[in-house]
Amino acid sequence: MSKTERVGVSLDKKLLSMFDMLIRKQGYSNRSEAIRDLIRNRLSQEELTSPTSQAIAGVFLVYDHHVTRLSQNLVDLQHYYLLQVIASTHVHLDHHNCLEVIILKGKVKEIEKLGNNIASLKGVKLSRINIMTTGEHLA
Amino acid sequence: MSKTERVGVSLDKKLLSMFDMLIRKQGYSNRSEAIRDLIRNRLSQEELTSPTSQAIAGVFLVYDHHVTRLSQNLVDLQHYYLLQVIASTHVHLDHHNCLEVIILKGKVKEIEKLGNNIASLKGVKLSRINIMTTGEHLA
Amino acid sequence: MSKTERVGVSLDKKLLSMFDMLIRKQGYSNRSEAIRDLIRNRLSQEELTSPTSQAIAGVFLVYDHHVTRLSQNLVDLQHYYLLQVIASTHVHLDHHNCLEVIILKGKVKEIEKLGNNIASLKGVKLSRINIMTTGEHLA
Amino acid sequence: MSKTERVGVSLDKKLLSMFDMLIRKQGYSNRSEAIRDLIRNRLSQEELTSPTSQAIAGVFLVYDHHVTRLSQNLVDLQHYYLLQVIASTHVHLDHHNCLEVIILKGKVKEIEKLGNNIASLKGVKLSRINIMTTGEHLA
Repeated sequence: MSKTERVGVSLDKKLLSMFDMLIRKQGYSNRSEAIRDLIRNRLSQEELTSPTSQAIAGVFLVYDHHVTRLSQNLVDLQHYYLLQVIASTHVHLDHHNCLEVIILKGKVKEIEKLGNNIASLKGVKLSRINIMTTGEHLA
Repeated sequence: MSKTERVGVSLDKKLLSMFDMLIRKQGYSNRSEAIRDLIRNRLSQEELTSPTSQAIAGVFLVYDHHVTRLSQNLVDLQHYYLLQVIASTHVHLDHHNCLEVIILKGKVKEIEKLGNNIASLKGVKLSRINIMTTGEHLA
Repeated sequence: MSKTERVGVSLDKKLLSMFDMLIRKQGYSNRSEAIRDLIRNRLSQEELTSPTSQAIAGVFLVYDHHVTRLSQNLVDLQHYYLLQVIASTHVHLDHHNCLEVIILKGKVKEIEKLGNNIASLKGVKLSRINIMTTGEHLA
Repeated sequence: MSKTERVGVSLDKKLLSMFDMLIRKQGYSNRSEAIRDLIRNRLSQEELTSPTSQAIAGVFLVYDHHVTRLSQNLVDLQHYYLLQVIASTHVHLDHHNCLEVIILKGKVKEIEKLGNNIASLKGVKLSRINIMTTGEHLA
């Protein structure tokens, strides 16, 4: 387990009391944890601006499962890109619509390209990609 | 199956040719489909601004599975909110870190509250919520 | 001038060294200032989720100044909403296009409504609204 | 003035009626204009993903004008980057806080770098950058 360091931060009293109020509402038990989360988020956000960063993503698709060929096209796309599909979950939304959540790993730019191409598939009504860093650097 | 209507749109030739270039790059086979997607996205975006809209969400958590009590706290939270958990997928990222993707249904405001509370759990390093409309109105 | 308080934060050494690298790249001279900025941003973001918060916004419009009535419609809209226009800057982009940046104060929800209505004005090609908190609570 | 072309789009009746309702609420007088705006936004968004695209931006700063050297540092930064400052507007928010909106032109990546560096200046409490395409390609 890695070592921790104690850092001192000067904060205006009013700013601090507003922050304390917010994190209590969110459920944090202490300030250190809340500040660590702000730092991790900032670092993660920074990492994702680099097109070659390794990332993990969830691709969300709402699609009409009556449209033939879509499943095949999805599989083809996943093979075309240099991405590693880890898992995929299928949810039945209503008589026409399915939600598919595909969890994959790969470079930021490959994931973004895949996202554009999936959106254009016939039968896909809505699509969204949620990219995150893998967290391995974020102790 | 619902009926379709043919709508005429006047577009500047230069704007049209730029749009054609973009959608070819994205993989669309025709303009109608690309324009339908723009419209669906706009409507979906609008629907999500209302706190009481029914939505579907993916909650992404990167967390340290060595931290005890986290799994129990996650389950408790899911019961506290008026949300219906549909599925959840667990991915082993490395020796310390796991990714958990929880797919759930509920009102926009309940989902957002849950998101804030999950971020604050001890052991959660990164969290993100991806909210989408259920697509049932989007033919 | 308000009082400051010294707060101690425990940070993993690796996380801390990554943060130090990032803030040096961004030009921060010390950690306290960087952490204060993260806190202020988080508080500001939270404040803007409330529709009745007082905010300051920049409305950006790219429009074709050959389209008559647009200036008049803009003025009408600004009077219709309960917003206080503080300043507006007009920039000549090219033969057809102007940029207008309108700085105004008002409630978040009023600003958002204005934004939607301005986007729909004939002649407006692009529009964007940048909302910020007024900063008065952020010491 | 450039030529327009009439394009036919097939739309599901239910989708169309929802879209009509939305654009009426937003104030559009006809569908063509609303669809043109969706297309322009999509193209603009695409253009901004390229780091070398020419863009126009509004840099928003809330800062404490009692902090000396800030104005000088701002001017230095503006000269350091290959950006062309077009105009800047100063607004007095309260006894301590000023808002400065700097409108500038330049490449997307230069604008983003400037944004990070401005955020780190001593005295700057909040900062945001609003980037837009210049609209010259968007007829």
